[in-house]
Amino acid sequence: MIVGIIGATGYAGAELVRLLAGHPGVSGFALASVSHEGDRIEHIYPNFLGKIEATLVKPEEAISRSQVVFAALPSGVGEPFAKACIEKSIPFIDLSADFRFDDDEETFAAWYGKSFVYNELRNYSVYGLPELNRSRIKELASAKKLIIGNPGCYPTGASLGAFPALAKGIAGPGTIIVDSASGITGGGRDPSRSFHYPECADSLAPYKVGAHRHTPEIARNFQAMAAMAARAVSVQQGPAVIFTPHLAPMNRGILSTIYIPLAEEWRPKERSGASRLSGAPRPPTKEIEEKAGEIRRVYEDFYKDEPFVRVLPAGVIAASGRVRQSNFCDISIHLDQAGTTLLAVSAIDNMVKGAAGQAVQNMNIIFGFDETDGLKTIPALF
Amino acid sequence: MIVGIIGATGYAGAELVRLLAGHPGVSGFALASVSHEGDRIEHIYPNFLGKIEATLVKPEEAISRSQVVFAALPSGVGEPFAKACIEKSIPFIDLSADFRFDDDEETFAAWYGKSFVYNELRNYSVYGLPELNRSRIKELASAKKLIIGNPGCYPTGASLGAFPALAKGIAGPGTIIVDSASGITGGGRDPSRSFHYPECADSLAPYKVGAHRHTPEIARNFQAMAAMAARAVSVQQGPAVIFTPHLAPMNRGILSTIYIPLAEEWRPKERSGASRLSGAPRPPTKEIEEKAGEIRRVYEDFYKDEPFVRVLPAGVIAASGRVRQSNFCDISIHLDQAGTTLLAVSAIDNMVKGAAGQAVQNMNIIFGFDETDGLKTIPALF
Amino acid sequence: MIVGIIGATGYAGAELVRLLAGHPGVSGFALASVSHEGDRIEHIYPNFLGKIEATLVKPEEAISRSQVVFAALPSGVGEPFAKACIEKSIPFIDLSADFRFDDDEETFAAWYGKSFVYNELRNYSVYGLPELNRSRIKELASAKKLIIGNPGCYPTGASLGAFPALAKGIAGPGTIIVDSASGITGGGRDPSRSFHYPECADSLAPYKVGAHRHTPEIARNFQAMAAMAARAVSVQQGPAVIFTPHLAPMNRGILSTIYIPLAEEWRPKERSGASRLSGAPRPPTKEIEEKAGEIRRVYEDFYKDEPFVRVLPAGVIAASGRVRQSNFCDISIHLDQAGTTLLAVSAIDNMVKGAAGQAVQNMNIIFGFDETDGLKTIPALF
Amino acid sequence: MIVGIIGATGYAGAELVRLLAGHPGVSGFALASVSHEGDRIEHIYPNFLGKIEATLVKPEEAISRSQVVFAALPSGVGEPFAKACIEKSIPFIDLSADFRFDDDEETFAAWYGKSFVYNELRNYSVYGLPELNRSRIKELASAKKLIIGNPGCYPTGASLGAFPALAKGIAGPGTIIVDSASGITGGGRDPSRSFHYPECADSLAPYKVGAHRHTPEIARNFQAMAAMAARAVSVQQGPAVIFTPHLAPMNRGILSTIYIPLAEEWRPKERSGASRLSGAPRPPTKEIEEKAGEIRRVYEDFYKDEPFVRVLPAGVIAASGRVRQSNFCDISIHLDQAGTTLLAVSAIDNMVKGAAGQAVQNMNIIFGFDETDGLKTIPALF
Repeated sequence: MIVGIIGATGYAGAELVRLLAGHPGVSGFALASVSHEGDRIEHIYPNFLGKIEATLVKPEEAISRSQVVFAALPSGVGEPFAKACIEKSIPFIDLSADFRFDDDEETFAAWYGKSFVYNELRNYSVYGLPELNRSRIKELASAKKLIIGNPGCYPTGASLGAFPALAKGIAGPGTIIVDSASGITGGGRDPSRSFHYPECADSLAPYKVGAHRHTPEIARNFQAMAAMAARAVSVQQGPAVIFTPHLAPMNRGILSTIYIPLAEEWRPKERSGASRLSGAPRPPTKEIEEKAGEIRRVYEDFYKDEPFVRVLPAGVIAASGRVRQSNFCDISIHLDQAGTTLLAVSAIDNMVKGAAGQAVQNMNIIFGFDETDGLKTIPALF
Repeated sequence: MIVGIIGATGYAGAELVRLLAGHPGVSGFALASVSHEGDRIEHIYPNFLGKIEATLVKPEEAISRSQVVFAALPSGVGEPFAKACIEKSIPFIDLSADFRFDDDEETFAAWYGKSFVYNELRNYSVYGLPELNRSRIKELASAKKLIIGNPGCYPTGASLGAFPALAKGIAGPGTIIVDSASGITGGGRDPSRSFHYPECADSLAPYKVGAHRHTPEIARNFQAMAAMAARAVSVQQGPAVIFTPHLAPMNRGILSTIYIPLAEEWRPKERSGASRLSGAPRPPTKEIEEKAGEIRRVYEDFYKDEPFVRVLPAGVIAASGRVRQSNFCDISIHLDQAGTTLLAVSAIDNMVKGAAGQAVQNMNIIFGFDETDGLKTIPALF
Repeated sequence: MIVGIIGATGYAGAELVRLLAGHPGVSGFALASVSHEGDRIEHIYPNFLGKIEATLVKPEEAISRSQVVFAALPSGVGEPFAKACIEKSIPFIDLSADFRFDDDEETFAAWYGKSFVYNELRNYSVYGLPELNRSRIKELASAKKLIIGNPGCYPTGASLGAFPALAKGIAGPGTIIVDSASGITGGGRDPSRSFHYPECADSLAPYKVGAHRHTPEIARNFQAMAAMAARAVSVQQGPAVIFTPHLAPMNRGILSTIYIPLAEEWRPKERSGASRLSGAPRPPTKEIEEKAGEIRRVYEDFYKDEPFVRVLPAGVIAASGRVRQSNFCDISIHLDQAGTTLLAVSAIDNMVKGAAGQAVQNMNIIFGFDETDGLKTIPALF
Repeated sequence: MIVGIIGATGYAGAELVRLLAGHPGVSGFALASVSHEGDRIEHIYPNFLGKIEATLVKPEEAISRSQVVFAALPSGVGEPFAKACIEKSIPFIDLSADFRFDDDEETFAAWYGKSFVYNELRNYSVYGLPELNRSRIKELASAKKLIIGNPGCYPTGASLGAFPALAKGIAGPGTIIVDSASGITGGGRDPSRSFHYPECADSLAPYKVGAHRHTPEIARNFQAMAAMAARAVSVQQGPAVIFTPHLAPMNRGILSTIYIPLAEEWRPKERSGASRLSGAPRPPTKEIEEKAGEIRRVYEDFYKDEPFVRVLPAGVIAASGRVRQSNFCDISIHLDQAGTTLLAVSAIDNMVKGAAGQAVQNMNIIFGFDETDGLKTIPALF
């Protein structure tokens, strides 16, 4: 199968190239770039020398030569390519935000400042988080015309970390706080002050506090899972969400610490949280550990058939470094010492499960490949 | 003035040596170490060569030669040295947790597994967070016998970030979440798997989730400030606190993102937080920014006489790298997009304001030095 | 094929596990550890969860169950296991230094402070640098009894960077200087002050200057290649070598900058190196570039059949980050501005081509697998 | 004294501001920037908030208001400002290369592609390496009109590491190789692909091999010291120099490993370097250590009055992290195992002794301040 990649010279595009070069179902590439047309990919990425060597073509040429097309472009420019693929009846897997809000143009417009270009494309599109929408992806794939709105990096980690709690009634009323930190590859390939080595290294800081575009995507996913769980039209709204992204001095990885208020029935009976005299918090009791164990088992059961979600055993805490270069999402389950809040910690590689790897996973589902093809890398610890 | 430092070879001890070597009121050192007695400090820290050269003596000798004694020891071993200093009527500044819970031995015992050794020492001790207890420190200093329980690193950043909101009624009912990340010097000088370079670098992870010893110290500080604000005995309990520490791949710094539920009267009137149709969150409105500005002015006013707290102007977000090697605590003020929660972000250098620098600040207060003596380093950006 | 790995819990052992888990010819493992016998590998390396799960057995059991055995042990303890494998007629691939000096026990003893335990094992052993000894490895493999002395990390990068210059008479008389820097995984898994994050990060320093054990291995390889080139018994000694290792604040990678005096016939005719008036050096001329190009072509030709050596085109300089997690050795070719010295720069991943990957490459040669099986990872740039 | 700084917003300029803000002889600043005129320095560097707050003015205004002027500008643009200062009889301290080659315009032109603009300025200028030219700087300072050509970062570390060997006849004939690595602040404040975090982190590579502009400056310094030592007009040329800069994944610091062929009389008598049988190198003998000790004592004596050069004791190897944020140059002395070559390792902070700190040191010499004023920072280990 020939794979087309539009935007092959950006970081997500290059990671797609790298992963797909090891895919048993891929026989060749048609790599396209608007800004580097005519250049060679191995001159831009000398790490590819001897393994991937190709001249960058126009997007139109990539589409005409391919059986599937990925687009790793900024939001707002890819719809014409999607349209061309639909007309040609080949799947289009879009890594931008353009097809992530297909039921809610109002929200897309509010956060991205853009409108849909071709409304009719939404008849063919699906939000490509396999753990949420695998069956819908397969349905559309059978009809040959299909657009994947590949999820954002932060929403992937946040959603997978919270889904079982939402689906199984573990989450009670109240706001869910998603506190995340990303490696600096998340900022892409273009140099800027924010990603200049001396200003990133040895420092940690949040950015776009209370204002990051991934907030509505996270909230929508939470709502979708809560609604699916309720199997009821009446559930209109999911929990309120506060999302804070940070930039951490590392290359790859997103670590999300997710604070989910526990439903009353999931709280330990005898609270250990506070001294009766002073009101000071107390260390966690054995009951806290047991309750965390119960919830962990719900998570394990929920994800038991998922090839890329690992619910970690008690005593192992999710760490971004342990999923590096893999498509895994690791999740560890904890309770606060007072037993009122579930702390789900999720870790992904932002370039793999958070972008290119998930796109390959979607391609595998569409074409009936083994879902792990091209994604078998075992993460190193170092 | 001769300064004694017990535990001079640990990271906090060495940082004390470094800072005090530049203090105009310090004429000499008596450096003590239990494990390295007889060695020379500049052999252990060759970065000191030519500037600080001294043989390490016994703690007793350091006490006998000094006008003030710092102890940078593990919790549970320093009380005999404190007793000796009180008997000699010289101030004892303790960087361990031994004197941080003097009103609540029950809580100290629950989290540290130890009891007080000399109860009577608590007649002379004070929790040394100057922004909370400066006047009490001065009071005790006048009586010549004084023990400082120097605050923990995380509690310093968390407390300073939340104090004005607690004192001025900006915080409403509900749990305050403190999500913090520390540089790896926080783990001290002893090598271990957790701080082994290949297992720390390029990775981010929480640790001791729901179970870190700094939780009760943070909660107690919040309660103390809330009570002080209320000026009423009736206020017995502060807000519930959830605290999650993370380890970040950097040397110095603690960045805390603090989620504080807003009191009803501090919430924007017209919420911008959600679409009426889909319930999806909306980007922050101008009113959100204005409300953040109001709160920022409360913070600025609260800290206007503090030499080491910088409330950052709108548009500048606190970053750990911008306070490196200084005694500053930077605080930036934000609201979530729905206007329900204050996000206060604080940044300190864990080795300075979070440990040795704050200890020097306490010494300055006790002896009537300028509070910034020895602490005038302007942080570099890089 | 079942693969035995003795010392599976060290970094080189774990990297072997990780690489071999993706090898098409490997059907199972027998993982052994002296210090962790009975533990599970995925508890020690949670990054393996769901992919590699096994109980660690005794070395003897691993040998009895396997068709090939790797040992990733300290020098001086593996000979009994080698003996057992020879008796069982299965290949033994040793990552320590024990079988790297089989013709020169005197040198081994001088640098490692140990003698050979079983001299007779040297009848079966070969130094496993495929680019030097591939045919000898194949010869021994056909006889079924075989020990590989897998090369050291620094000697691999240094040798590959200098071999063509030595073999083709580009190197003239004089000392060759190898100035190398390694990532910190090179120090292994045991925590120590030298590899403690706060003391490594943001710093660069040499270590064991003029005294590193890899010096005689590099010198011997240079001599072997020079002798092979000369095809003459008369060539007894190779060039003098100075080798300086540095520790760099990164996880993986070895970058070697190798200074090789040019033979007279390879020096540019019209030197551009110095001003006639002041003796000051001049910028490189076009002739310098051309001469570098000639030498580059010699290198390309020398390595044209090697699957893992990439001679980089003009304008691309070898960088350790561009071979990360791959078995590649990248080499770039330069001349100093005066045209007297060849600067060959080589980059490898110290854990892959410098250790585990090269061991897998040797296994592939022995068993007739494709030499790249299990080693197809394309390096990412980030 | 009012200090003018032209180019205050670049990294070297900002470091000047930071160091001079703590200088006891500095009462105020006139900060100038061409590109940011009218902006405020604390908006560009929020780390300065509360400590250094100033509006950026035109260069002309800075000159008119100041008693000394620093210029931290690209090479080739600062001569008009130097001229204005000479006319006003105030010292001008230039951090660019414009005044580093005042005796050899030919070499400056060859490497920088520019000619001198005002030749007459060279009557007032001196190359500002205090360890080489302190007396000449003082001479010119007495005449009130003075231009300092502040040394380049690499030449500072390389020169100090080699000077005693050149001055005392320890260096024999042959090429000196300077192999250096710099932290990424050396690339300045402007974002670019080379200094983009994801492409720098966890990687090490040389750049401008055989072609870096600091090569002639290093060679000229070596020649100057050799000539000074010989006190003879006949010595026209210094040793040939090969200089290779690398970029290391760290913020600050330059580590130089300098290979200096030993003069015959400085070589150990009984060489330990090679086995008589195999020619393999031997570990260093005691005599090697003793000879290194002799040379170390020569270095110690040479630098005994220098406030910023530390010759490290046996057993301590220079490391860039141990001079961070200080004006120190640390030097350690080693011999290769064969006793033919001196390995001098020098470490500086590229932003301090390599740029802004050395400029302050020059100001101190000119104005008769204590040479360490503003430069008393004791480096931290972490």
